[in-house]
Amino acid sequence: MASRDKAKRGIPSKEDFNLWYPAIVEIADLVDKRYPIKGMDVWKPYGWKAMMLIDGLTRAEMDRTGHEEYNFPLLVPEDLLEKENKLVSLLKMAREQGVDPSELRLDEDDAGFKKEVYWVKHAGENELDLPMFLRPTSETPMYTMFPLWVRSHSDLPLKTFQIVNTFRYETKQTRSFIRVREIHFFEAHTAHKDQSGADAQIKEDAIIVQNLLHDLCFPALISKRPVWDTFPGAWYSNAVDVVMPNGRTLQVATYHHYKDQWAKAFELKYEDVNGETKFCHQTTFGMSERMLGAIVGMHGDDSGLIFPPKVAPIQIVIMPVAEHLDDNVILKVKNIAEQLHSNGYRVRVDDRDIRPGAKHYDWEIKGVPIRIEVGPRDLKSGQFVMTLRTGGKDSHDSNLLLEIVSQAIGDIESELRQRSSEHMKKFVVKFPGITETDNGWKLNSPLEEGKVYEFAFDGNDSHAEILEKATGLTFLGDCSEPYSEPQPCVVTGKMTTNKQHLARMY
Amino acid sequence: MASRDKAKRGIPSKEDFNLWYPAIVEIADLVDKRYPIKGMDVWKPYGWKAMMLIDGLTRAEMDRTGHEEYNFPLLVPEDLLEKENKLVSLLKMAREQGVDPSELRLDEDDAGFKKEVYWVKHAGENELDLPMFLRPTSETPMYTMFPLWVRSHSDLPLKTFQIVNTFRYETKQTRSFIRVREIHFFEAHTAHKDQSGADAQIKEDAIIVQNLLHDLCFPALISKRPVWDTFPGAWYSNAVDVVMPNGRTLQVATYHHYKDQWAKAFELKYEDVNGETKFCHQTTFGMSERMLGAIVGMHGDDSGLIFPPKVAPIQIVIMPVAEHLDDNVILKVKNIAEQLHSNGYRVRVDDRDIRPGAKHYDWEIKGVPIRIEVGPRDLKSGQFVMTLRTGGKDSHDSNLLLEIVSQAIGDIESELRQRSSEHMKKFVVKFPGITETDNGWKLNSPLEEGKVYEFAFDGNDSHAEILEKATGLTFLGDCSEPYSEPQPCVVTGKMTTNKQHLARMY
Repeated sequence: MASRDKAKRGIPSKEDFNLWYPAIVEIADLVDKRYPIKGMDVWKPYGWKAMMLIDGLTRAEMDRTGHEEYNFPLLVPEDLLEKENKLVSLLKMAREQGVDPSELRLDEDDAGFKKEVYWVKHAGENELDLPMFLRPTSETPMYTMFPLWVRSHSDLPLKTFQIVNTFRYETKQTRSFIRVREIHFFEAHTAHKDQSGADAQIKEDAIIVQNLLHDLCFPALISKRPVWDTFPGAWYSNAVDVVMPNGRTLQVATYHHYKDQWAKAFELKYEDVNGETKFCHQTTFGMSERMLGAIVGMHGDDSGLIFPPKVAPIQIVIMPVAEHLDDNVILKVKNIAEQLHSNGYRVRVDDRDIRPGAKHYDWEIKGVPIRIEVGPRDLKSGQFVMTLRTGGKDSHDSNLLLEIVSQAIGDIESELRQRSSEHMKKFVVKFPGITETDNGWKLNSPLEEGKVYEFAFDGNDSHAEILEKATGLTFLGDCSEPYSEPQPCVVTGKMTTNKQHLARMY
Repeated sequence: MASRDKAKRGIPSKEDFNLWYPAIVEIADLVDKRYPIKGMDVWKPYGWKAMMLIDGLTRAEMDRTGHEEYNFPLLVPEDLLEKENKLVSLLKMAREQGVDPSELRLDEDDAGFKKEVYWVKHAGENELDLPMFLRPTSETPMYTMFPLWVRSHSDLPLKTFQIVNTFRYETKQTRSFIRVREIHFFEAHTAHKDQSGADAQIKEDAIIVQNLLHDLCFPALISKRPVWDTFPGAWYSNAVDVVMPNGRTLQVATYHHYKDQWAKAFELKYEDVNGETKFCHQTTFGMSERMLGAIVGMHGDDSGLIFPPKVAPIQIVIMPVAEHLDDNVILKVKNIAEQLHSNGYRVRVDDRDIRPGAKHYDWEIKGVPIRIEVGPRDLKSGQFVMTLRTGGKDSHDSNLLLEIVSQAIGDIESELRQRSSEHMKKFVVKFPGITETDNGWKLNSPLEEGKVYEFAFDGNDSHAEILEKATGLTFLGDCSEPYSEPQPCVVTGKMTTNKQHLARMY
């Protein structure tokens, strides 16, 4: 029966993650991909609710840390880009040539930015005098306004964020939540008096990330990206990578230290306590619907999704189990639902007139963490039956409902955290080493497909290039958790605590 | 002192509403209009918070009535418009020629729709094969998907909504919240088995509107728009008009009965219980940031905004009043804040080291409903001083804090409702009548600028045209509250209970 139900719904085995993922996001009714623009899905209520719950966790963290929510226009006039283009070109050339950016002259057409945006050049029947584009991210619109708001040191720090739709003209293959063309996006932008203010913000961002990962019940690799993979205009970029079940890493968050680089381009200055004019130091922090993609990928199984309780659109489904309609059972089910609802749980009663097995599979697919059933016999014995989506089914005393459910929520979270950290251990393995031969650098043993390789590294950019070429994988950057004891660098042999990962990134 | 503070902040008198309104939305920090695209303001945190609280009331009503929240893509491929264009042209021509729409042949270029949208014809460096536009509203994207979701009667009713950004290429003068080019928009779209299902939905929408108006503390004129002012594609349109302080009406909500007209254009069909294929009947319901514009306009005064408590970003500001820093006073202030916060109020402590007068003016401008002050003397007597933004200042027993505040919130709401209904009575006046002379129709007495005229009407379209021409005003349509006793129609003299209004609309 079970396998027939599953087959009917067409869930592939999660072993074949590249089939399973696109199937489950539609079978579980998170999105509908049949909208006639590739990479622009329709969010169905169940998926949108999950996303709003994730946003809710983010907003709570923003509130805790004194960020305020703004909402900037979607459209950006092209001429505002000039400052940004200058900055990006400047930094790129400075890096390439190893010189001070201020000594460089700029070619305005240098920035690659324009290749990735949707353009609005027409409105009604008119061609616009000045083309506009749909924001891919909001540095330009925001930093156009910041200098109007920041005048003196008392206006700082300025801690802003917004949750908006952004757009990227993707030419690669699109995937729901992971690579889309309209992106549900969170971005925080801050301005500070000096570098140490921005440093402190980066530390705060790291804690916010940890809090969110804790609530979503999965671990991530946090790395300072290599210079060549730093966000345009950033001094340095930190990235949060989740290791998905196919071994690919998914960048779900980034936070960047901008130093005063953008501030100089946008003339974001303030008067300090001594009346001197100084440039602000800035940071940004971005996350997106990829977080939901990570939840789907990390926690789901062959039977469907498993939602971490904090962001489960339905936390508990309650169903009567009786051969015939039994008013007392229905009453008990409603009473349990009411008790849980009034204690803040997101609850659904399923009293559809279909086989219990069919209901079970529905809610399994949708990843509802807890299922409660009550039948005539349970009613007599003053009990209810509770099944956890992570496994386990037991009868419990009805009088202890709230304690039992609260405990179960905690148990499910612990179980998900344990599973995902085991998953990570399975996927992140030691790099086999590399040796220089007469025919160039050779791996000491062949690599496995779908693994992330960890190793000590103390080389320079050309050593990194050797590794990327030999493996076909990408450097994630300096890991935020270095080795406790120095290890030999895999290329130079020098002792170092610097930990690196090579991975295939989404 | 008071007048100096006000003068400094540059609040014009509300008597001159057309000066006051654009000034106060910036002085109270709801938006910043300096973004370099006209009609696209930056939402500041205070304004955005108010808007999100309004959205919260809307979502609660949607939840109560079983609507589910979706999120559709912003971009719409041009070819999807074909069906809509056909429908709109068809209905327009049918109306003009008084014939059955199904007998008409269509000119594809007829629809005026394309004149009001922003076009995306380029992405990156490519010209797109198929142009897309930014949604001005979502009939087309939604009704493209609905037929994929509705198959049988058991899929109905389908009750959907979304809260999203929409775009209109406005060529008229823009005004914050009232006429903008990026619109924060709510839209509900429903599909039903038959006309009576859609009829019931229209009734439900009317109740939702009343609930929202109650929470926002102002009345509105609700009218069934005349045929010539019906939304394209609708069978009929109901509109909710607020009478603003300059006497102009602001349409803040509309709900439309589509019958099966759109369903036929988009082939939205279902199989009924007897296995017969039928077309759905549909409705839509739209609201926007205009609701915030109405709050600003209806409740504000010469000192600034007055927020109805339900959507006040800060409901209560609490401040210590002491010549010197007094730890006990600070402690008491924090204690009051904590009590109120844990009872669900939105609270702000203002312990800035500036004159109390300056603080008062700040919070008056921002329209915070309740101000609580505690000084050393209050502390001794176990009291606090409470000032209502609508007027009134008194000392109260600290032990009764929660009762007093709860009562005050109710009092402020009642006061606002009374003020706005008196305002409406002042602005909505009896039409002086009109007489046919040898030189055409003449008003019996000249009209006053800035009034809405009410009258009984039983004429036809050409009678209505006579009235619009003679007055230079616009018909709002059949009022939802007709006369209790028949009155003579102002043109034909026939007795009727049909009530109409002529107004200058925003």
